[in-house]
Amino acid sequence: MKKKILRVLREAGDHFVSGQSLCESLGVSRQAVWKNISQLKEAGYEIQSVSNKGYRLIQTPDRLYGPDIESRLSSGCCCKKIECHEQIDSTNTRAKQLAESGEPEGTLVVAEEQTAGKGRRGRRWSSENSVGIWMSLILRPPVKPVQASCITLIAALAVAKGIQNVCQIESYIKWPNDIVVNGKKICGILTEMSSELDYIHYAVVGIGINANTRQFPEEIQDKATSLYLESGKTVDRQGLIAAIMEAFTTCYQKYLQTGDLSLLQEEYNAMLVNRDREVRILYGMEEEADQSQIEQGIAHGIDENGALLVETGQGVKSIVSGEVSVRGIYGYV
Amino acid sequence: MKKKILRVLREAGDHFVSGQSLCESLGVSRQAVWKNISQLKEAGYEIQSVSNKGYRLIQTPDRLYGPDIESRLSSGCCCKKIECHEQIDSTNTRAKQLAESGEPEGTLVVAEEQTAGKGRRGRRWSSENSVGIWMSLILRPPVKPVQASCITLIAALAVAKGIQNVCQIESYIKWPNDIVVNGKKICGILTEMSSELDYIHYAVVGIGINANTRQFPEEIQDKATSLYLESGKTVDRQGLIAAIMEAFTTCYQKYLQTGDLSLLQEEYNAMLVNRDREVRILYGMEEEADQSQIEQGIAHGIDENGALLVETGQGVKSIVSGEVSVRGIYGYV
Repeated sequence: MKKKILRVLREAGDHFVSGQSLCESLGVSRQAVWKNISQLKEAGYEIQSVSNKGYRLIQTPDRLYGPDIESRLSSGCCCKKIECHEQIDSTNTRAKQLAESGEPEGTLVVAEEQTAGKGRRGRRWSSENSVGIWMSLILRPPVKPVQASCITLIAALAVAKGIQNVCQIESYIKWPNDIVVNGKKICGILTEMSSELDYIHYAVVGIGINANTRQFPEEIQDKATSLYLESGKTVDRQGLIAAIMEAFTTCYQKYLQTGDLSLLQEEYNAMLVNRDREVRILYGMEEEADQSQIEQGIAHGIDENGALLVETGQGVKSIVSGEVSVRGIYGYV
Repeated sequence: MKKKILRVLREAGDHFVSGQSLCESLGVSRQAVWKNISQLKEAGYEIQSVSNKGYRLIQTPDRLYGPDIESRLSSGCCCKKIECHEQIDSTNTRAKQLAESGEPEGTLVVAEEQTAGKGRRGRRWSSENSVGIWMSLILRPPVKPVQASCITLIAALAVAKGIQNVCQIESYIKWPNDIVVNGKKICGILTEMSSELDYIHYAVVGIGINANTRQFPEEIQDKATSLYLESGKTVDRQGLIAAIMEAFTTCYQKYLQTGDLSLLQEEYNAMLVNRDREVRILYGMEEEADQSQIEQGIAHGIDENGALLVETGQGVKSIVSGEVSVRGIYGYV
């Protein structure tokens, strides 16, 4: 109900929507409309009500609210349901628990704050309250586990496209799982999966975006940035979440069509920050890498399986997602 | 304590072990020994106690008992701890829950009965009370997710070797995850995994063995058999579990040494029921396969990555574990 009211009011823009027309399009009583509008006001939505004119949405609070995000999604969107938390340990952990209990594909867990946000390999991911987008989407892709590494790349592409559409900021993908703006990290992606030999139970795609962060700790100021710092404007986080989900839907459908990235490869490579640049391949864990495990080369882009093609002294190597880390040799990207 | 008492008594065989010597080797009081022996008797262990002679183990009950299985394991065994259940939904589900909570590698969950035993792809696995071996081992292998498919093959090899050692029955491996005796299934293996792109959180190897089943329902009598039916003897299930864990340890170490099956390939192929036999490759799910998805060929054995090499009309194909099903064209195996 609230989802539908918000959708109707938002579509009306500056115009009033009469109570009568709200009742009709929602198929409910005036009292039900009034009650839900009151609840929306309590949740921080500024909704003007004028006799004989009706209702008008003046302002949306900068708080994540499930029905609001849902009201912005198209009916074909792969995101079907949103679970919103004020605070949670980790959206990935919660999404995995839901998936274990049989939650279907398309449920998105979002949180204002994560107290134990996760980075890759159990590293901590800082997730400040109310300034970021911390979200995890449950997927049940009908593909083999070996094809699942593409999902991280698809999510990266969707985030870059969403940022472009909503914030008009050019962002780039740092293969395989980061998004950078002006050489600094703005988003990280962590895909986790539960599988058998030849069957994926579920995958959870965790996306963490530095949206409205005003300032980073000094030690990471040269490595991290936010959409606010890059654009000077507060980002509409709910709008960005919806835009990313829509972009993800398009990419995910193309991926399922072929089971690989052949339909997305070109678009991905156009957004690849490492493309045609010198990169270092660090074999093994980054922390453990010594000089003997580092190789230099020029990154050419990904192939249809998501592997990064790097031209080295020994010819073009196909770097399988996850086998190595790739860093630009000058600075962070 | 009980684990140590059982080990000392079993090693003594028909001989008595004096209370004094038990106290000394365990470093505890006579009262503690007496108390633990009483508890073992309550658990069904027949232990003879004779004044001035000591204790002697007469008979071990056919019940799964954690300290007993642990008492049979060598100190180098990869199985470090046993959690024993009278009844459980599924040992794999329990092991996954433990692993999610941080349980280290080497914990084995065993149960007398599973009420919701799992086969591949969520199929049901029948797990009758007290006659089978239903167990799941937690692993945290330091390998990439793509290398994890080998774990099922290693477990199959370990089960076949364990059966050979304890029951003197020749069993064969039906690639990738079943063990057969005389053309009938005696064991199935279900490996599940939680992973990131390039990092395994944990793997759970579920092993289900028809040990002392006296009779199968008529509809599967030609497809399934038990160790009891094949040997005419009641199997010592605890001894078999221990033997499988020891065999698994050896194979697992060889696997971790190279990250593939190159050190185990020969031994595996010698036990492969499909070897040099005509097989059908069923692409897609078995239920969905139509004639157009079936190809025939001669199976030659596995390569070092665990793929099955099949000679078809179009040359030798490398069948990646999980991409297809392979059945003999005559009968079940």
